[in-house]
Parts: sequence; structure tokens; C-alpha cells
Amino acid sequence: MPPTPEEYLARHEARLVEELMAFVRIPSQSGSPACAPHIQRAAAWVADRLRRAGLENVAVLPTDGHPMVYADWLHAAGAPTVLIYGHYDVQPPEPLELWISPPYEPQIRDDKLFGRGASDDKGGVLAAMVGVEALLAGPERPGVNIRFCIEGEEEIGSASFGPLLTRERARFACDLVVSADGGQWSADQPQLTLSLRGGCGAELHVRGASHDLHSGMYGGAILNPLEAICRLLASLRAPDGRIVVEEFYDDVIAPTRHDREQIARLPADEEAYGAAIGVPALHGEPGFTLHERTGLRPTVEINGLWGGHTGAGPKTVIPAEAHAKLHCRLVANQDPDRIFELLRRHVEKHTPHGVRAELSRTQGHSLPYFLPADHPANRIAAEVLAEVYGVAPYETREGGSIPVLSLFQELLGAPTILFGASTADANIHAPNEFVYVRSLHRTARCFARLLRRLRDYRKP
Amino acid sequence: MPPTPEEYLARHEARLVEELMAFVRIPSQSGSPACAPHIQRAAAWVADRLRRAGLENVAVLPTDGHPMVYADWLHAAGAPTVLIYGHYDVQPPEPLELWISPPYEPQIRDDKLFGRGASDDKGGVLAAMVGVEALLAGPERPGVNIRFCIEGEEEIGSASFGPLLTRERARFACDLVVSADGGQWSADQPQLTLSLRGGCGAELHVRGASHDLHSGMYGGAILNPLEAICRLLASLRAPDGRIVVEEFYDDVIAPTRHDREQIARLPADEEAYGAAIGVPALHGEPGFTLHERTGLRPTVEINGLWGGHTGAGPKTVIPAEAHAKLHCRLVANQDPDRIFELLRRHVEKHTPHGVRAELSRTQGHSLPYFLPADHPANRIAAEVLAEVYGVAPYETREGGSIPVLSLFQELLGAPTILFGASTADANIHAPNEFVYVRSLHRTARCFARLLRRLRDYRKP
Repeated sequence: MPPTPEEYLARHEARLVEELMAFVRIPSQSGSPACAPHIQRAAAWVADRLRRAGLENVAVLPTDGHPMVYADWLHAAGAPTVLIYGHYDVQPPEPLELWISPPYEPQIRDDKLFGRGASDDKGGVLAAMVGVEALLAGPERPGVNIRFCIEGEEEIGSASFGPLLTRERARFACDLVVSADGGQWSADQPQLTLSLRGGCGAELHVRGASHDLHSGMYGGAILNPLEAICRLLASLRAPDGRIVVEEFYDDVIAPTRHDREQIARLPADEEAYGAAIGVPALHGEPGFTLHERTGLRPTVEINGLWGGHTGAGPKTVIPAEAHAKLHCRLVANQDPDRIFELLRRHVEKHTPHGVRAELSRTQGHSLPYFLPADHPANRIAAEVLAEVYGVAPYETREGGSIPVLSLFQELLGAPTILFGASTADANIHAPNEFVYVRSLHRTARCFARLLRRLRDYRKP
Repeated sequence: MPPTPEEYLARHEARLVEELMAFVRIPSQSGSPACAPHIQRAAAWVADRLRRAGLENVAVLPTDGHPMVYADWLHAAGAPTVLIYGHYDVQPPEPLELWISPPYEPQIRDDKLFGRGASDDKGGVLAAMVGVEALLAGPERPGVNIRFCIEGEEEIGSASFGPLLTRERARFACDLVVSADGGQWSADQPQLTLSLRGGCGAELHVRGASHDLHSGMYGGAILNPLEAICRLLASLRAPDGRIVVEEFYDDVIAPTRHDREQIARLPADEEAYGAAIGVPALHGEPGFTLHERTGLRPTVEINGLWGGHTGAGPKTVIPAEAHAKLHCRLVANQDPDRIFELLRRHVEKHTPHGVRAELSRTQGHSLPYFLPADHPANRIAAEVLAEVYGVAPYETREGGSIPVLSLFQELLGAPTILFGASTADANIHAPNEFVYVRSLHRTARCFARLLRRLRDYRKP
């Protein structure tokens, strides 16, 4: 008698951890041209692991950017098809000096596995693969058809994903997507994510003189582009946190009383939250709670800012140029193209006299995503999470973006379920990223159990 | 019969140009630790050139920083002693891609010798040395005693100069300083500089969270340090250009009607000035003309600004830190220490809630300098300039700083005469720095003639 999925997973816990460490050792940074060979290695690693899990038709699909790894198991005729989504690419690890152990030399400390990508998203991807392996190794055949699509461009906006899905719509046909790129509230508290913010990226370039000038000869004669970019960037928001770009909030749907009640159920110790990240105080749009601000409200952030002499020692120049990287997080019903246009108009209107300014589009545009809690897929997932963790999941609205979820909806007509191993304290996109080892194992169990249970799923 | 100084200089014009090219080839960047060996080479080059010019007691004097080159000719008993000042160090050449010919491979195009340091200050230093050489080679002995002091830290604030002057006051004893670090209005129009601005440098550090955060998870929850530094920097001035740091202008002496009349005589084609540097419009403190703003009024400039992700591709972070390099240009009666304290208080008062900010002192503090036009030394210099150029010099007030001039006044009791080969269009501190070749030769003639004429100088 083959082991049940639960037995199988219990037996192979040590192997799952070892395999995640091997996966994390591959520095698959999608935004770094120098890492292109590692991207290829990571894709091959995923393909090999899917093959060993018992999946079929494993393929590393080329795209205009980084490849996508595909695999399937399609022997449940007439049953629903579930597509498991995740990504094998990671964020850059800088600043390196802040990592306690090096980003690509994974280390376990206190039930936490540290390393770039441990939580985002190599832990989730591996947990899903191992969950499916346990199911395929078990006494019963899975009650659903399963596809995997694990991409390599999530951290840079998934630009190749839409074209590939459009081109190969049949290959990806499914009734439902389960994302392996979700999270959980804390190490022992599961969550089901109802919404994600979209995104809109831009670069701001401000130019003054045709070359850097001596600040003694010209100081007082002209507007310094660094001062101009400060004025422009400061003009995007009121000091109290409200975005004052005209029409910016126009398409945002005001939260209902029900929405706000659900969000108010989430623990929100603002003092502990601030202390955990080391800020002297929280700050944001007036009239909204912390979780509302990060989950229900859009934002505009400066991700990078540079100009003039930034090296050691003094250099008394008025630089010719100043630059900034901007990125908005958008909520349901906001359109990234329209938001970019509003920002462009704002820059045009507020550019100080004496410099030229230009706002250019960058990668990272994505639509916001939303699936209600009472959708049948979310209901089944909530049951599974409650069984595995022994406690009902929180229903959350996430501040981050997974651009492909709106593509699945649009191109495949499939909604997405979102839960996973990553926690809020996991330092994703930051030094010392980690995943709780016990979360990894529970997530694998959730995948095995959910896929069995989804045989009863029918589109509403 | 030996040649007159004029004849000597006419015969050796080609050699002067070749020697300047050799001098410019040494990348003596005082602010770049990697250039330390080149600093030593440049000092040795100057010492050797002074020796060949006929100067005596040539010495490369060590300091806590870069060495100073000393030499003298002291055989005019009872006559005034003139100290010739200049510097052999240069600014960094970045951005390199904007240079037409490489910064340390000098090239002559259209009577202009291009290269880092050609105008600031290697051209001036060499013209002075060659002028003295012509005088020493001539039929008459110089009517004054001559000392040279050519330093290596002018571009980084001359920190070692004061201690050295204090330690060796007797060695530098003089009645008058002639600076080889001055300029001229244009290729054919000489000028005599009456005042220079002082300086005050600072770095601003703004810190939010203890590490970079995911802009999706935290966007809306906290204040972005990049946004905070923009607000802080924008708060230093009103949008119209007035500095609004409290008490900043309190010690500035209002210009007299006479001052403003003299300045109004200077050509000021604002359109041509703006077009020459490529700005869409000039900008500055209301109520003052262009030349008043750069010569008579203080300023505060951002020399560098950086934080977050500044490399290729997107990175959706809220960075933990933001940094800026600041530098004020100060005018007569302003004190750099007091101005730093005013800036510190301004930062303390205007730091937005949600971040921490700190202003730290940097190199580059110096007192403003002023010597009236009717001072006897300036009168003699004005005559010499008029004779050599065939046109009377403009009396100007310069926006730049030469920190040592107030040291000469304070420690040696000696005022400074300031003229030279550098022109406003010479791109000093910027790519494609150059010196007009004819200005170089005229400046050498001015030095030879001025030193002969100063035998009549008496302290007022």
C-alpha cells in the first residue's frame, strides 16, 4: 500500500529542506543581465524537479525574455484542470553587507531558512511541487488535472508571460489557478488573499545645463536639477500622505462597510509593526487604518533617486541631471496606463521654470486583482487551510502585485487562489529573506489536500 | 645683453604650451585616494619646474594631507616680498563620457588647450613660474623678493594649508600675495577679482526603516526616506529662489549703490549666458541681477543626492536611507560655522514625522574674501593688466572660493591680488575644461611685469 500524501510528506521533510537550499543557491536574479546563465540553471532545476515529481510533458518554454517551465498531469478526464503558478526568479540581494549569512549560501537558524528567494518564491514553488509529488505517489489518483507554469520574470513585471499565454492558450487552459506565490499571516496563522495591488512604473529625468557646472561660478544663477527633482517629487503628495496628483483617486472604489469590518478583524499592533521594521513612526494617507492603506489604497513610491556627485569626498558642482525611479501600487478599478498619463501630466504641470523634465514608462505595469471570499474556490481553500493549520485563515488584501493574476483571468478565464509559506516578517525584497521551515511543510500539505478536494470545484 | 622678459616669453611660447600639456597629463585629483601617487608626481613636477626657472630653496613640504611646493628668490633686500600662490591638484573628471578628448590627454583645438586642470589651476601656476623665469633671465634683477607656495588640496578645502602656514609663518612671510588661481572675463578682456565667496559643506542623512522594504507590502504604511529627503531639501528655499533657512541672510552686508553700479558695468547678456550652458531659463533670488546673485549673494546647492535602487531595471523597494551632499557659497561677513548651525537647526525643525535626519559637517568650510578696488596693490595690478591686454580690467566679484586667501590675511597679514588665464567659458569643474593659449601667454607677461612694478608697492 503506497503512503498517503500526509505520510509521504512527513517522511520526506528533510529532503524538502535540502532541495530548497539547493534551489536558493542559484542566484536567478531576473533583473540582472549578468545572471542570465543562473536563470537558465534555475529553469532547468525546476524542470528536473517536476519530472522527478511525476509530472509529464515537462518543457522549458523559450520567451522573448526568461524561459517559463511547464509540466502537466492530465489523466482525470472530465475533472477540473488546476494550473499551479509560481516563479523561479528572485530580486537583487543588495545591500549585501546587511545579510547575516550570504544571500546565496542558505542557512537555517531557529526554524528559519535564510537566503534570497527562500520565501519569494522558491519555497512556495518547491512546496507545491512536493505536494503534487506526494499526491501522485499516493494510493489514489489525483481527482483533478494539474498543470504547472513557473515563470522567470515575476520580479521584473512578467513582460513575456502575456504573449506566451496568448500564443499557447490551449496549453495553459484551466478552470482555476492556484498560486504558489501567496503567503500566510504568521508562522502559525494561515491566510487567504482576496486582492493584490497592481503596478505602474516610471522614471523621472530632470535636466538643467548641458553639463555639470562649478557651483561657485553658477550657484545663484540657475536652478539646480537636484533641487528641481526634489520639488517635483515632493509635489506628488501632500505632507500628510495624500497623493495630490490630479484625478489619481478618481477610479478607486471606496471600501464598503463590510470590507472595512473584515480588515478591522486583522491584528494591527501599529507600535509592534513600526518597531519590527525600525521606523520612528508610521505614516500614511489620513482617514484609513494601516491595513486599509496597504491593502485597499493606492500609493506612489520613489524606489531610487540619484544625481550629481555621490562618491567619496566633496565635489562642488551643480549637476546637469537628476533621476528617479517611481512605482505606484494600484487598487481594483485603477488602470496603470491612465495613472501613468496622470503622472506625466502632473510632471508637465509642476516642472519648475529653469529645468526640463521627462517621465518615461518602465517595466512593471500590471492590473490590480480581486476575487471575493465567497467564491467557491476560495471557500474550498479556506477549509483546507483551516484543516492543516487548525485555525481558520484570515481574509486579507495584499499590498504587493502579481501581474499575471489578471492575465489568467483575462486570457484563460480562470480565477486564482492565493495562499503560501511566505510571512510578513520574511524580509522579501530585502536583506535576510527567510522562510519558516514549518510553513514550508504545511504549505506542501495544503497543496496535496487542496488538489484532492478540488475535484468538487465547479465554476460558479 | 640678456633678453627682456617680454622677448624671453615671446621666444619660449611653444615650450610653455608643451610644458602645460605635460603637467595636465598628471591626474592629480586631490579628492581621489587612488590618485595619491599622481599627487606626489605633480608636486615633484612643480618643484623641478621652479628649480629650472631659477628659484632657490625649492622644497616639497609634507603636510597631514597632500604636500605643498615651496621656492623663493630673496635677493632684493629692503624691497617688498611677494608670495605667489596656486595649486597643482585638480577636480575629478567625471562624467568621462562627456569629454571630447580624454581629460588627461591634452589636445589643442582652436587656440584652446583642453584637459582637466588646464585652467584650474595648472595653466595659471605654469604661467606664473614662466613669468618669474623670464624676469630672472632678464637684464634687471627683480625689484621684489619672491616666494612660491603651490598647494595640493585646493579642490578639497585646503585643510592642511592653515596648519602649515601657522607652523612655518616665517617661511611664508610676505607683504602681498599674488594668486595664480584667478581669471579673466573673456579671452581678450582682463579682470581683477575683488571678492570671492566662502563655503560651508554638509551631508544630510535621512533614515527610515532598519532595512529596505518591499514597496507592495509597506507602501502606504510608512514615510519613504527618499520622499522625506526631497521635502527637506525643497524646504531650504522658497520656489522663487530665496533661501528660507532662518537667519541665513542675517550677516550678509547689503550691497551699496556703488557696489551695484560697478557690477552693473559688467556685460550681462542673460540669454547668451543661459544658451552657453544649455539651460531653458536662468533662475535665482528675486531682486538681484545675475552678477549680483553669483557674486554678492550666498547660495545653497545640492551637489549630490542618492538612495534606493539606482542601477539598471526596476526594484520595487522603499529604501532604508537617503543621502545628500550640500554646499553653501557664503559672502563677506557670513561665518561658515554659524551657517552650518543654522542648517542643522533647519533640518531638526523640518524633518518629517516618520524618519530620522542628521546633518554632518564635511570638508570645504572657508571664509569669504574681499579686497577693495582702491587698495594700492589692486591699483598696480589694474595698470599692468591694462598695459598687457590694451584694455582696462573689469572689477569683478567671483562666486567661487579660494579658502586660503582669508588665511593669508589672517596669518600673514597679506592681502591678495587675483587675476589669471582662466575664463568663464573654460568648463572648470566640468567636462572639456580648457585654457585659451593666448591667455596663458598674456598671463605669463602679466606676472613678469607685475613683479617688476611691485617694487613701488607699500602697505597702505
